[in-house]
Amino acid sequence: MASVPTHIGNYPEEAPTNILEDGYELWLRYRALEPGYRATCSSLLRLVVLPGGNESPTLAAVRDELMRGLGGMVGGAPEVVHTITGEGVLCVGTPATLPLVASLGLRLDCLGNEGYVIRRVEVNGFIATVIASNDEIGLLYGAFGLLRALQTGEFNVAFSLESVPKITHRLLNHWDNLDGWVERGYAGRSIFNWWELPEYVDPRLTDYARANASVGINGVVLNNVNASSDSLTVPFLEKTAALANQFRPYGLRVYLSAKFSAPMEIGGLTTADPCADEVKAWWNQMAVRIYSRIPDFGGFLVKANSEGQPGPQDYNRTHADGANMLADAIAPWGGVVIWRAFVYSDHVPHDRVTQAYTEMAPLDGRFHNNVILQVKNGPLDFQPREPINPLFGAMPHTNIGVEFQITKEYLGFQTHLVYLGSLWQEVLTTDTGARGHGSTVARVVDGSLFGTPLSMVAGVANVGSARNWCGSTFDQANWFAFGRLAWNPDHDAGDIAREWVMLTLTTANDAVDIITGIMLRSHETAVDYMVPLGLTHQMGTGHHYGPGPWINDAGRADWNPTYYSCADRTGIGFDRTCAGSGAAMQYSHELAQRYSKVHEVPSNLLLWFHHLPWGFIMPSGRTLWEELVEHYTYGVASVETMRLEWATLRDEVDPARFYQVSAYLEIQLKDSQLWRDSCITYFQKLNGMALPQGVTPPSHSLKYYKSLAFRHAPGNPG
Amino acid sequence: MASVPTHIGNYPEEAPTNILEDGYELWLRYRALEPGYRATCSSLLRLVVLPGGNESPTLAAVRDELMRGLGGMVGGAPEVVHTITGEGVLCVGTPATLPLVASLGLRLDCLGNEGYVIRRVEVNGFIATVIASNDEIGLLYGAFGLLRALQTGEFNVAFSLESVPKITHRLLNHWDNLDGWVERGYAGRSIFNWWELPEYVDPRLTDYARANASVGINGVVLNNVNASSDSLTVPFLEKTAALANQFRPYGLRVYLSAKFSAPMEIGGLTTADPCADEVKAWWNQMAVRIYSRIPDFGGFLVKANSEGQPGPQDYNRTHADGANMLADAIAPWGGVVIWRAFVYSDHVPHDRVTQAYTEMAPLDGRFHNNVILQVKNGPLDFQPREPINPLFGAMPHTNIGVEFQITKEYLGFQTHLVYLGSLWQEVLTTDTGARGHGSTVARVVDGSLFGTPLSMVAGVANVGSARNWCGSTFDQANWFAFGRLAWNPDHDAGDIAREWVMLTLTTANDAVDIITGIMLRSHETAVDYMVPLGLTHQMGTGHHYGPGPWINDAGRADWNPTYYSCADRTGIGFDRTCAGSGAAMQYSHELAQRYSKVHEVPSNLLLWFHHLPWGFIMPSGRTLWEELVEHYTYGVASVETMRLEWATLRDEVDPARFYQVSAYLEIQLKDSQLWRDSCITYFQKLNGMALPQGVTPPSHSLKYYKSLAFRHAPGNPG
Repeated sequence: MASVPTHIGNYPEEAPTNILEDGYELWLRYRALEPGYRATCSSLLRLVVLPGGNESPTLAAVRDELMRGLGGMVGGAPEVVHTITGEGVLCVGTPATLPLVASLGLRLDCLGNEGYVIRRVEVNGFIATVIASNDEIGLLYGAFGLLRALQTGEFNVAFSLESVPKITHRLLNHWDNLDGWVERGYAGRSIFNWWELPEYVDPRLTDYARANASVGINGVVLNNVNASSDSLTVPFLEKTAALANQFRPYGLRVYLSAKFSAPMEIGGLTTADPCADEVKAWWNQMAVRIYSRIPDFGGFLVKANSEGQPGPQDYNRTHADGANMLADAIAPWGGVVIWRAFVYSDHVPHDRVTQAYTEMAPLDGRFHNNVILQVKNGPLDFQPREPINPLFGAMPHTNIGVEFQITKEYLGFQTHLVYLGSLWQEVLTTDTGARGHGSTVARVVDGSLFGTPLSMVAGVANVGSARNWCGSTFDQANWFAFGRLAWNPDHDAGDIAREWVMLTLTTANDAVDIITGIMLRSHETAVDYMVPLGLTHQMGTGHHYGPGPWINDAGRADWNPTYYSCADRTGIGFDRTCAGSGAAMQYSHELAQRYSKVHEVPSNLLLWFHHLPWGFIMPSGRTLWEELVEHYTYGVASVETMRLEWATLRDEVDPARFYQVSAYLEIQLKDSQLWRDSCITYFQKLNGMALPQGVTPPSHSLKYYKSLAFRHAPGNPG
Repeated sequence: MASVPTHIGNYPEEAPTNILEDGYELWLRYRALEPGYRATCSSLLRLVVLPGGNESPTLAAVRDELMRGLGGMVGGAPEVVHTITGEGVLCVGTPATLPLVASLGLRLDCLGNEGYVIRRVEVNGFIATVIASNDEIGLLYGAFGLLRALQTGEFNVAFSLESVPKITHRLLNHWDNLDGWVERGYAGRSIFNWWELPEYVDPRLTDYARANASVGINGVVLNNVNASSDSLTVPFLEKTAALANQFRPYGLRVYLSAKFSAPMEIGGLTTADPCADEVKAWWNQMAVRIYSRIPDFGGFLVKANSEGQPGPQDYNRTHADGANMLADAIAPWGGVVIWRAFVYSDHVPHDRVTQAYTEMAPLDGRFHNNVILQVKNGPLDFQPREPINPLFGAMPHTNIGVEFQITKEYLGFQTHLVYLGSLWQEVLTTDTGARGHGSTVARVVDGSLFGTPLSMVAGVANVGSARNWCGSTFDQANWFAFGRLAWNPDHDAGDIAREWVMLTLTTANDAVDIITGIMLRSHETAVDYMVPLGLTHQMGTGHHYGPGPWINDAGRADWNPTYYSCADRTGIGFDRTCAGSGAAMQYSHELAQRYSKVHEVPSNLLLWFHHLPWGFIMPSGRTLWEELVEHYTYGVASVETMRLEWATLRDEVDPARFYQVSAYLEIQLKDSQLWRDSCITYFQKLNGMALPQGVTPPSHSLKYYKSLAFRHAPGNPG
């Protein structure tokens, strides 16, 4: 184990570079640039021109960020001037607020209200750097873009950047309860302290808003989808308004999860039937109550008729009936209703993964224009690997958004290093086949495939009040990558990883290569030691952390790992072909064909779609059993490799973060071994087969592995 | 409302004094001294002599703290030297480790192993400053003592200080669950992250240990008294050992709350009967298991047969039987068992406050030598004001410790400014009358009254993972004051407050006076708006935050505010004289007499001991009703005064902490008004009397006040 560094805090007499880093600054560290590059940047950015007059809060945020960023990186905050009389000026403005910008003839018409351009252009006979946009929020995004370019060494005399978000709604979903507890949260208490609001608004929330804006996130759902109606009472709306005020300058709108039965619980009605007049009237009044306090309130997120939550089906109404009723109530103010497609009935189905499609697909075209259907990336529930959700491509007349899970409920919490950019890119680049070749999930969710007006990428937040925000250094990368992909789903996950490393940890080339390499292999590594070859849902009940492949006594059949593995003496895997549950048929013809054929399905989804004998011969020539064992073993070895590679970085990374990552990799190594050994032991007990030659056998009995508990796990509502 | 400061964090280009303070540094800020004083101190402390050779972890902590403190205050960390060749040297050592110290002839025999002296003495012909002690932990306490003197301006050429703790066991009790949730915690999640232990030990815990050592706290109970047996399983003992290793250099021992039924829950036994051989054997084995990992393990804290916890009475054994069995198990290693006297049976008694005495007093002399009975300061439960617990003075043959509550469960959580030093001093200076005049609670708990060998002051911690540790700036003062009083119960609460202000907020004289004044009035202020004249337990069920004087439907009679007020049409107050419950008779003869006489009982305990008609004439000439209303009203006015006084300090206190305190005082003002108005409205409804002339009537109806909920309160297990 790495030795524990002591005394995190400010030593007043030491230089900033020697301060032990606690991760609070995220990717916005703005450390001094290398001397040569610093001199170049300093000469190019020594003065700043900003709009004069009454400064809006957003413009103040732009100015503050530039002062902070340039001050830290280039040395000394630049002077703010009002005219250009030489080189080295940075002009920041919209055509409306800075006439100079209007005079430059920049093409801004394609930028929308959030995009920006950064150009090096001639102004008054001198070459200046210009950040221009149509609305001020674009300037803030542009300022962050420029500062990022400086940090990663990309800024120079020929610098040019144009960036427009491809997604209209880029949202964090906080599963935060009103008492501060966070469902599936591994980063301390909620960052929202409702108890102290509205009187006290934690200044840290400004840094939260800055961090979100820096990666382009423009909305935040404040409370858990398993919602309390109390969030819609006046005292809590006052608290929400205080948060909205704090976030507004950063382009961050607030949304609330709405409990469908609120009219009964806090409204005194006897029904929540979406077709009842008094229910409609109650929600209309609620909309007035909200928008009178928060004119730019984003809207409602609703989890209905799912895992015990109330919903329109309680009244024999459809999801569309429920969503549309709410949507109509807030439409006059421009609000949206985000309706979750993660639904499954109280009855155990023949195949749980078919349910969202079965319930939702027939409703295509029935949702109003300001409804977005929020579809989890896969058909089950944020498992380490799933095929895409078959709803992508199946509802051409519905605004479809994707829901990712940034918090790692099923991927080792904060202590396992798993970079999710790879997982999300895998989803976004998958071709649904809905409109022929190139009908990727990205094109569904960005609205371009079907021309849907609203687009959304949502992520279940991994942010809490932990000093380092996310519980671990590398989970910061997942927040970062989420934002960058929500802005542009075509972004490359590897590029994002490299960028994050340079902003957050080090700019030394070799170290950047090593760390980026670790990150890009990390997701497949976790899949290998947890659920290789398309296995899924093999974790323990409740905690969702350690292995439990033997579990068959959960509250209902489809909560059991045995339900998903279908493993027995003769074989393993869930038959979802026509001969089985038929779930594969929910995909487009092309995908359905591919997934149904055992020799065409990608091997990493093999056991998701097929039940096969243990002796099935894989393309490698090995049997399925041998290959499975190989994957588990390789997963553990990969963690060991990560650990050894990280250990070489002792002199490249500050001691506090180096030590935390080192200690967490120890935990991950121990856990990956446990996953491997538990799964191999259990499956071997079933099939009675020998381990492949040369493979190290597990060191304990099945009884031992079953005896291990993961008690007092964080974030577990059970 | 004060405007919200933004951007907490390090601006690399600004001087340290401009960094917005987030409270992390507590009272250990070590800011640069005023220039003149700084020059003096600098000349006196420019070189440090420390023992050479292999440096122990404690000595390393001493050196680090001196370097940090002197570096910050005096300017530039001093040089470490090994001989004295001039003025300006600080020598730090024990006679055993630094021969120089042995040669000085300092009287160290009265210092025990934790005390220290600081003297200015001649060494090698030069005047040096010497910190000397018998054991190294004394040097650490001495280093903190010297640094405190520097910060408060008391260090000079004639400086001399000798300090020895009067209490052997100075303990924090954390009511922290193993999943990180804190019962009655208002400062975020637990500072102990069991999930990540033992691999990852948060470096912040070193600062936690430093803070505790700086005020002399020498032990910490890591888990909730409502304990899970899991804390005694091997995986959790490994985690505990990691914490013990981290804390050991700072003189901080770890203790665990032990669940009495653990032998059944994790040991597979069918009984937890303390007289059963297999139970004794199990605990003996547990002791081996613990001490083999943690040789200096402090011992067990036990809540037994109280509020549903299991205990020896389940087997018709006494508390002494239970405590002694555990005590014998850990006696070979020097461990202690701390047995809580907060017990009450499952049956509603005729007077709940008599129960601890009734159960425990007869057991005097029956507890083994390494048992300490932990007695809450009052006979009920940490109410804003109670008389002392009658057990103080009643058990001369038992080690008696006092339990205070640092976290403000009944005193407005983190958002009300209430300095508890005043409350604790009131308790500690109360004369029990047990051995004639001067038999104060302080002399009971420091062991001097009865010559008991072990002494203890324990406090329920208010520390969590909030960046400022305690949730609010002023709650830091309660942690500080607790430690200082635990070291020396005769310390003056006002002196401690002033010291804390100078260390934490400002050394400007006027500001120190104002803030100290606010703190010293704050406890009586809260009593005034919550429970004046000896009223008690008037808060709402579960949350324990806002008023609920009307509540009469709690789970059992003695959980109801109406049970305690006994208010009706004709009068108010609980008759605890001989004519009533007789609880007053549990005190020494002198106290019993005083409390029983309506004209001799202190007016601040009047209604605790007496039921009186509303028209009872008080010494002031006003009726009881008028006086009650006066107190409630004065409490609100006092908060308003605190708020106005604080507002004058805008330029004296940094913006972040100034804003937080300002916002919290807004909350406190709103809440105090609510307390006053709710209580007045309810009691007026009962007695039908007019408000005194000139008194502002409450602005709402009783129905309104009853309708207010305090939902989603932090720390509420209900």
